[in-house]
Amino acid sequence: MPKAAVITVSDSCFAGTRQDLSGPAVTELLAAHGFVTVCKLTVPDEQPAIENALRSCCSEAELVVTTGGTGVAPRDVTPEATQKMCDRLLDGLAEVMRLEGRKETPFAALSRAVCGIRGQSLIVNLPGSPRGAATSLLAILPLLSHALGLLAGTETHEIPSNTGNSRPS
Amino acid sequence: MPKAAVITVSDSCFAGTRQDLSGPAVTELLAAHGFVTVCKLTVPDEQPAIENALRSCCSEAELVVTTGGTGVAPRDVTPEATQKMCDRLLDGLAEVMRLEGRKETPFAALSRAVCGIRGQSLIVNLPGSPRGAATSLLAILPLLSHALGLLAGTETHEIPSNTGNSRPS
Amino acid sequence: MPKAAVITVSDSCFAGTRQDLSGPAVTELLAAHGFVTVCKLTVPDEQPAIENALRSCCSEAELVVTTGGTGVAPRDVTPEATQKMCDRLLDGLAEVMRLEGRKETPFAALSRAVCGIRGQSLIVNLPGSPRGAATSLLAILPLLSHALGLLAGTETHEIPSNTGNSRPS
Repeated sequence: MPKAAVITVSDSCFAGTRQDLSGPAVTELLAAHGFVTVCKLTVPDEQPAIENALRSCCSEAELVVTTGGTGVAPRDVTPEATQKMCDRLLDGLAEVMRLEGRKETPFAALSRAVCGIRGQSLIVNLPGSPRGAATSLLAILPLLSHALGLLAGTETHEIPSNTGNSRPS
Repeated sequence: MPKAAVITVSDSCFAGTRQDLSGPAVTELLAAHGFVTVCKLTVPDEQPAIENALRSCCSEAELVVTTGGTGVAPRDVTPEATQKMCDRLLDGLAEVMRLEGRKETPFAALSRAVCGIRGQSLIVNLPGSPRGAATSLLAILPLLSHALGLLAGTETHEIPSNTGNSRPS
Repeated sequence: MPKAAVITVSDSCFAGTRQDLSGPAVTELLAAHGFVTVCKLTVPDEQPAIENALRSCCSEAELVVTTGGTGVAPRDVTPEATQKMCDRLLDGLAEVMRLEGRKETPFAALSRAVCGIRGQSLIVNLPGSPRGAATSLLAILPLLSHALGLLAGTETHEIPSNTGNSRPS
């Protein structure tokens, strides 16, 4: 089973003044799609804290999902932390999340969520609301298994590849 | 009433050899949607001039709109100036402008317009033609009030936020 | 006739262990749309090799098309090389390629292909499979002639421009 990590990015959840609903919702959705969540973290909306959490989770899991901090509020900096931690970006996944999100609410266009690759891990930003997080994750779940297989070198494109790296276990 | 600034980016308008139609069209559209334009500038297609105009306007207005310089012509550098002046980008708004623009003309895909945040101001690039500028602006106008509210800390997401910064007046 | 260059990015094609089908398919498609291919290169999935190929081809051709290396496999770095070689990016073309590609397969969202401008040349990344490359190229072919005209200064927007640079021949 592929390993996932879930990072809740929220000042109020970190301070304990608000209950985290999105983190558990994301974990449950991932479990229903065959992922085992090996790491759950809650960090405040501070770029260094988010970067550290991403770095740490990427060493544990193939899929690292964040929830929160993707909007335009002054303290929303999850995308900036994610971009800094990624070697390569995957704009197409972020586009799909926004396109599908806009079918529910036009405000999905305001999500600044990014997706990208750090080493052999895939990082996906989700919005902070439980519903927004679920909508975004469901939009790309059908693509994640193939993406993770390509990234691990256990699957190839239609054309044969000669880069048979397998993920170090 | 929220304050807006309108920057016309055009060599020929700056030189006075062409009448600026887009700047006034944008200003009128903004007025019809409740914005008061407190600053109007015309600059040539020079990156430093555009950057200075953006810096200056962001200290005056919550919404800074440029028109012109977003295409692929050699001197079109408004997006590069905008990216340099922004702390955080808002790719989703640019995507919506292109998607809506493509319903009018396939060439809307060639717009390199970007949107982003500088401090507590939102910057939006529009194309240089009056019609293209209006189409792009109308595509995102329904989102701007909410975006500006989030940015000023006077509105929150569905989930409560503990960052109650209000815009210094 | 506008000049094109075609770069095949593939470890196995470079090593000669796989026949390049995409490069010839792209060249044929370009010919059918009025481009003369003046330069064909095959390079491995190494960022410096791709960057050198892009630099060299941009000095020969108005349109430089790559095929391969745009996915999420560990050695897929064509987009990173392309971004480094570009002065200005053209996100809208990449968006259109993914949107059209998703009509054939949802996995088109995993393409990290970028498009951009280097000097007076337009660079376009295509996927590595012959079919994916053709789909992506066909999606933007109707836009390329106008884009190249704008870039060369031989065409203008609806609004007159005073930058009548013509491409040095």
